[in-house]
Amino acid sequence: MRTYLDCIPCFFSQALKAARIAGANENMQKKILGEVSKLVPEFPLESTPPEMGRIIYQSVNKLTGNEDPFREIKKDSNQLILNLYPKLKMMVENSKDRILTAIRLATAGNIIDYGTPTSFDIEKEVANCLKSDFAVFDYPEFKQALDNAESILYLGDNAGEIVFDKLLIEELQKEIIYVVRNKPIINDVLIEDAHDCGIDKIARVISNGSDAPGTVLKLCSEEFLEIYHKAPLIVSKGQGNFETLSEDRAPIFFLLKVKCPVIAEDIGCEVNDMILKSNLTNYH
Amino acid sequence: MRTYLDCIPCFFSQALKAARIAGANENMQKKILGEVSKLVPEFPLESTPPEMGRIIYQSVNKLTGNEDPFREIKKDSNQLILNLYPKLKMMVENSKDRILTAIRLATAGNIIDYGTPTSFDIEKEVANCLKSDFAVFDYPEFKQALDNAESILYLGDNAGEIVFDKLLIEELQKEIIYVVRNKPIINDVLIEDAHDCGIDKIARVISNGSDAPGTVLKLCSEEFLEIYHKAPLIVSKGQGNFETLSEDRAPIFFLLKVKCPVIAEDIGCEVNDMILKSNLTNYH
Repeated sequence: MRTYLDCIPCFFSQALKAARIAGANENMQKKILGEVSKLVPEFPLESTPPEMGRIIYQSVNKLTGNEDPFREIKKDSNQLILNLYPKLKMMVENSKDRILTAIRLATAGNIIDYGTPTSFDIEKEVANCLKSDFAVFDYPEFKQALDNAESILYLGDNAGEIVFDKLLIEELQKEIIYVVRNKPIINDVLIEDAHDCGIDKIARVISNGSDAPGTVLKLCSEEFLEIYHKAPLIVSKGQGNFETLSEDRAPIFFLLKVKCPVIAEDIGCEVNDMILKSNLTNYH
Repeated sequence: MRTYLDCIPCFFSQALKAARIAGANENMQKKILGEVSKLVPEFPLESTPPEMGRIIYQSVNKLTGNEDPFREIKKDSNQLILNLYPKLKMMVENSKDRILTAIRLATAGNIIDYGTPTSFDIEKEVANCLKSDFAVFDYPEFKQALDNAESILYLGDNAGEIVFDKLLIEELQKEIIYVVRNKPIINDVLIEDAHDCGIDKIARVISNGSDAPGTVLKLCSEEFLEIYHKAPLIVSKGQGNFETLSEDRAPIFFLLKVKCPVIAEDIGCEVNDMILKSNLTNYH
């Protein structure tokens, strides 16, 4: 997905929020917004929003000298959802369609996103996602793809959300490769989050080799790309992965909660909608 | 009120919205955001937001070659509310406290604001303002000030809203000087709006001599300032006038609907709150 001009005010909002979380005082916050002002006019709209996001967040980290401003937030999110895990697991076990319930929960988990202006109440979100309809619901296609695939490449998104991913991975009963970011960027999952949440016990965990808040293929490692291009089925979580892969031809199912009006417009849905979208139908 | 860093993303949103209303294509919109990027880092936070707003909107007008992009919107807003006028007038006439009802309606009218990201439904807003409590309600002080004042300086805000002002002015039964902006800026009222809505029949209409979307005293004309400094009672409509006059010592009652989180924080209330706030209590 390209960058729209409506993303530009949001880049400034994101930079300000990140600067505050990184502990910058008002002078430093203003300096950071000044840096963003220099970057924005040069940024090509043909690029995806996470490519700009990457530059902005790395600039916040550099200027504040804080390499991982969201570290504590990520740890807290993981612990919060790990505490909910037994309750969530029971919801899956007591449901008629366990995979669908796990998909619903994995979508609810996608609300834990510090790269968007929304705040969230996770228990409310879970209740909501269990009863709401998906705006795009390629579930039959997903079930069929699942039947045909021996393994799944699962592109993780945020800390906390990763525990919801664990529930879904446990239901998929396939060989899973779970992908994390290579370096701290917003509250996106790293290797340590996968370990903290026990993903390494149920999947092979790899990094995509990049520090973008999405999957920018040209910035990913050779190792990751080799796996990516051979994957028979890819589950992509969240907005950042959608924004960077929506036009790729790999066999991807995008699973996300829409939190921004630009993405809603691109998909043709509303903010707050739940999406399970195949890109197989576009190209195959 | 000073400018907060949270105003900066909003300046970009406002510039983009204005550029689109002015008919700019995407290239021109990007160019305008680039201009705003150059202006923002140099802007002193000690200034009020409408001082920056003035520079941004004038820059949009200059770059698009459209001197009054909101011209049609203003005409339509005026006509929309003029059509509602008989119904609104009956609401005032049938109420127990006519002045209070007219104040409530004048606050409802303040929702017609193209300088904020909110959209509006005016009939819903009228119904809402008739039944909601004010978050700040210096009505007894206003009634007392009204008893003691022979004349009122009434600072207008937006087109459409001006018809609601007319209803209030008719109830105040004082000598009124109604103030408009000197040049087109967003959908703010000009002399022609006052004439189109018949304000000149019930008040003396003057310009403040400035093209800011507020009342930036240092940019106002000598003629206006002389009247302003002698005014025994001032009614100030809307956010822009509040932002530029909230720290002044003149005897002002601010009447507005809060549409932005920064102003809400400054006042100590919530977005969507109705405000009738005296600054007499601060200084006298």
